[in-house]
This record gives sequence, C-alpha cells and structure tokens, in this order.
Amino acid sequence: MPAQSLHLEDLVIGQRWSGGPIVMREADIIRFAAEFDPQPMHVDPVAAAAGRFGGIIASGWHVASLVMRDFIDKAPFGGTPLLGLKVDDLQWLSPVRPGDILGIDREIVDILPSRSKPDRGVITMRMTVTNQNGVVVLSFLNLIQLPTRLGAATLR
Amino acid sequence: MPAQSLHLEDLVIGQRWSGGPIVMREADIIRFAAEFDPQPMHVDPVAAAAGRFGGIIASGWHVASLVMRDFIDKAPFGGTPLLGLKVDDLQWLSPVRPGDILGIDREIVDILPSRSKPDRGVITMRMTVTNQNGVVVLSFLNLIQLPTRLGAATLR
Repeated sequence: MPAQSLHLEDLVIGQRWSGGPIVMREADIIRFAAEFDPQPMHVDPVAAAAGRFGGIIASGWHVASLVMRDFIDKAPFGGTPLLGLKVDDLQWLSPVRPGDILGIDREIVDILPSRSKPDRGVITMRMTVTNQNGVVVLSFLNLIQLPTRLGAATLR
Repeated sequence: MPAQSLHLEDLVIGQRWSGGPIVMREADIIRFAAEFDPQPMHVDPVAAAAGRFGGIIASGWHVASLVMRDFIDKAPFGGTPLLGLKVDDLQWLSPVRPGDILGIDREIVDILPSRSKPDRGVITMRMTVTNQNGVVVLSFLNLIQLPTRLGAATLR
C-alpha cells in the first residue's frame, strides 16, 4: 500500500492514475468462476473451446474484482478507507482471456463534498480497463465515499 | 443446475424469481477481501471492530459475485449461457456482515430481441438483495444477453 494518504480535499476533477498490469491466468479465471460464475464458458476449457468464444473467458465479476484490488494497491490513497456506494454504466465490452494483460485508466470526473457531514464526500471515478491490444474490455463509473482530512480520524 | 432451460421467447416482463438464502460467513468475507479488496474494514476484525461499522463488513464486489452464483444456481435457465453485458444503478445500500442471511428478488423489467441476429436478445433484470431484517443491501439492473431457442445451438 502506498505510504501517502489522500483525502477528499487533495483531489481535483480530471486527476488520473493508471493501474495494472493485471496478468490473467487460466487457473485464476477457473478458480474464481468455479466459486461465483460456474458456466462452461468460464470453467470448462474443452466446452469453451467448442463454443462461441473459442476458449475460456473470465467472468465479468472477476475482472471487476481485480480492478478493485488494483485500486487498493495502485491508487495513492494509503490507508484512507474507500467505501463503494454506487456503480453506473458498467459495460463488459470485450472478452477477457487467459494470457491477457490488462491496464487501467482511472479519472476523477466528479467531486461532491457532503453538505451535511464535513468529514466526508463522494468522488466519481471513470474506470477504463484495456487489454494488451488496446481494446477496452470493461468500463464503469464508480461513486466512492472518501473522508476529508477532518474525517481521517472519524471514518476509519 | 435446474434441468429446465429457458430461452428468450420463454420470458415475459414482470416475471420474478427469488434467490438465496446466502449465508455470509466471516471466513469467506475475509478470504474474498484478502484477494480482491484488502481494506481493514473487510479483512481485519480488530481494526474493523474499532471502526465506524463496529465490525467486519463484506466487500461490495463479494456480495455482487455471490448474487451471480445464486443466479446460476437458482434461476431456471439450465445450461443456457448468460452473458453479462452491462450493469446500471448498482447501489450498495447497507453493510453486509458476518452472520447475515441474504435473499434475492429478480424481476425481468425489459426484453429486447435483437433486430439483426434472430438467435439472441437482451433481458434487463432488476436484482434486489435483502438481509434477514428486510433491509435492502444491494440493488442493480443487469443487462444479460440470452439465446433464443434458435440460438441454443449457435450461442454455446
């Protein structure tokens, strides 16, 4: 986790971070899907090879969860708690396959300090996930509650 | 998996299914979050107990992934592939805690046969996840590509 901790007043609209690389391994794709999305296209290499995608593809929820992990690791929020409130316009635009290497672009598109609670606010980030060929595979807007510096002590 | 397989033309707007119960266990909450969302509120019982939620809460992506698993297990689509295209208006409305037992209400709110490809269409389902106290913890709209009976052979 980065040592630096950012709070609401440290951020500006248009601020961007890049994330990744996330290397997609077949064993991880199958393990996640066996638990959470056990469809042949995600868990059965033989059935998937004979199917419309010509091979295993990752569950969309797996890719979204990996983007969350990378957000914790790569965005410079340090120990500041990131409380997901809402997701809008989440689109799984292209299949993610074993061997794919994903990169992430994060951009702050809105910042809303709370009117009633000075210890917190909400940022909106546009997450754009691209594979090694520059194809966007996933995109979404994420509304995240973030403490102000005042909230650093109260919103643990 | 249910033996029955439903395709696009078998569905009607307003059709509903219930899902669950999903029993939230602390060990599962911590295991998921350790891999995908390693924040103290999700993985550290001591830090979480001293924090704003008074204890561990589940990562929102964990709850969403469990709803996907239940969808495969409980909705009567049999082997029909369910390809998630889009999610809108996903809101994590209340914390999910160890010991919570979640129920799911799924309702078809839209059905759009493809104009150009007679083997497929898109359904929109409203997923509403409620805890044992009747509190809605998660709600979202899910656009899912589903084969027609014609597509049962081509869209595996």
